[in-house]
Amino acid sequence: MPQLTTGEFSLVYNLLSFTLAAMLASFIFFVLSRDSVAPQYRAALVMSSLVVAIAGYHYFRIFNSWNDAYTISNGVFVPSGQLYNDAYRYVDWFLTVPLLIAELIAVMKIPNGKRGALTARLVVAAAAMIALGYPGEIATTTATRAIWGTASTIPFLYIVYELFVGLGPAIQAEVGQPKILLRNIRFLLLGTWGFYPIVFMLPLFLGDVKGATSVVAVQIGYCIADVLAKCGYGLMIYAIARAKTQAEQANAPARAAETVVAGH
Amino acid sequence: MPQLTTGEFSLVYNLLSFTLAAMLASFIFFVLSRDSVAPQYRAALVMSSLVVAIAGYHYFRIFNSWNDAYTISNGVFVPSGQLYNDAYRYVDWFLTVPLLIAELIAVMKIPNGKRGALTARLVVAAAAMIALGYPGEIATTTATRAIWGTASTIPFLYIVYELFVGLGPAIQAEVGQPKILLRNIRFLLLGTWGFYPIVFMLPLFLGDVKGATSVVAVQIGYCIADVLAKCGYGLMIYAIARAKTQAEQANAPARAAETVVAGH
Repeated sequence: MPQLTTGEFSLVYNLLSFTLAAMLASFIFFVLSRDSVAPQYRAALVMSSLVVAIAGYHYFRIFNSWNDAYTISNGVFVPSGQLYNDAYRYVDWFLTVPLLIAELIAVMKIPNGKRGALTARLVVAAAAMIALGYPGEIATTTATRAIWGTASTIPFLYIVYELFVGLGPAIQAEVGQPKILLRNIRFLLLGTWGFYPIVFMLPLFLGDVKGATSVVAVQIGYCIADVLAKCGYGLMIYAIARAKTQAEQANAPARAAETVVAGH
Repeated sequence: MPQLTTGEFSLVYNLLSFTLAAMLASFIFFVLSRDSVAPQYRAALVMSSLVVAIAGYHYFRIFNSWNDAYTISNGVFVPSGQLYNDAYRYVDWFLTVPLLIAELIAVMKIPNGKRGALTARLVVAAAAMIALGYPGEIATTTATRAIWGTASTIPFLYIVYELFVGLGPAIQAEVGQPKILLRNIRFLLLGTWGFYPIVFMLPLFLGDVKGATSVVAVQIGYCIADVLAKCGYGLMIYAIARAKTQAEQANAPARAAETVVAGH
């Protein structure tokens, strides 16, 4: 770990705390908002609350790890000798990324026969993507890093293919606000998830990746990407579930009336 | 950080703990009281509970930071060398101030078409107000502090304008208790939010802002302002939602009766 100025250390410190607070608040929101969506969408909100609870736990650990990894000496933050454990992030992704995929499918119109198999394929791909990235992250040579990074890209590309091609007809079948939101959420997924491989690949392109600027930039990037990909994504899933609930409630009395007329 | 007497240190210490307890109690109250307001006002109570949960988390951190920043030596509290991290307050405001604005709009009579755009504008203004204040807070020169402070005032004035002019007709359209409460809540907002820029500007007017009296006074001021602006404000929002719920329930049977009469 490099030596940091008070400003650099504090920026990461406060951003880690901010992310922890955002996860905590999102957790409370998703738990309290379950009742405002129709029963068939509640599983999606439960998954959103699991994602931010898992991330909140890991940010609590990352915050403490960051704090313990440095000690102040003559107004400068120097490494304390304790390990800054970035591996918490991999554990977090291994648990949360499959859930993020599953909650998207949970708010979409997919025939029950196909839903299970599709969820299973995407969840396995998501878990494989993270598991294959980890050996590269802890590798000591750039060659090993590149090999595992490439292996990890294969399931990532499969997920992107399913999102933009495989799920296309299901999104076309939607109407109004949910259709717009479902189209946009794929770009949020691609944009935020795309950030992680860029950080992963940085050591292959930059010489001084262990410098202060790189370390601070990577931590800031991860925090922002996590807030968008977990809290922001969860809020979009909530908005989709809420819009669908309202549309279904608006149609329900009309349909009931039709039934009465048809019955006569 | 200045040297403090036991009385000065303990006053801040106990007031930070008091504020933490107030946030915790308010959180429990808002969560438990959701069911006593009509479904359309529940989002406002959820937002109130998020605000005090986020603030509770930050007061927990601020309390620990205050405690760690001092050490007792010969009956006097002297700086321990550990940073007292006041930046927690900025992170807190960045998350809570937009929510406070959004919950006010959530209990007002605003056409659904306008509600989304109005909320978005005010939330962005609130976030910009906090974000622009932060570089000034950590600035080392008074000139830089004044520039960012002035920049931060622009979105603040826009919010005040919307509250007192833009939202005027919507408040006029209300009747009875909710109308009085909505008028008053704007003054609570202005009065409590107005305290923060005063503290921000203090270093521009006072010489000895790092003295014991200033440091203690600022912490006391922040605690009182936060209890009023978060717990007190949330209770007023609850009172508005409750009064509206009761008025609507009182009208509902009358309307149902009219429908029956009209049907005959």
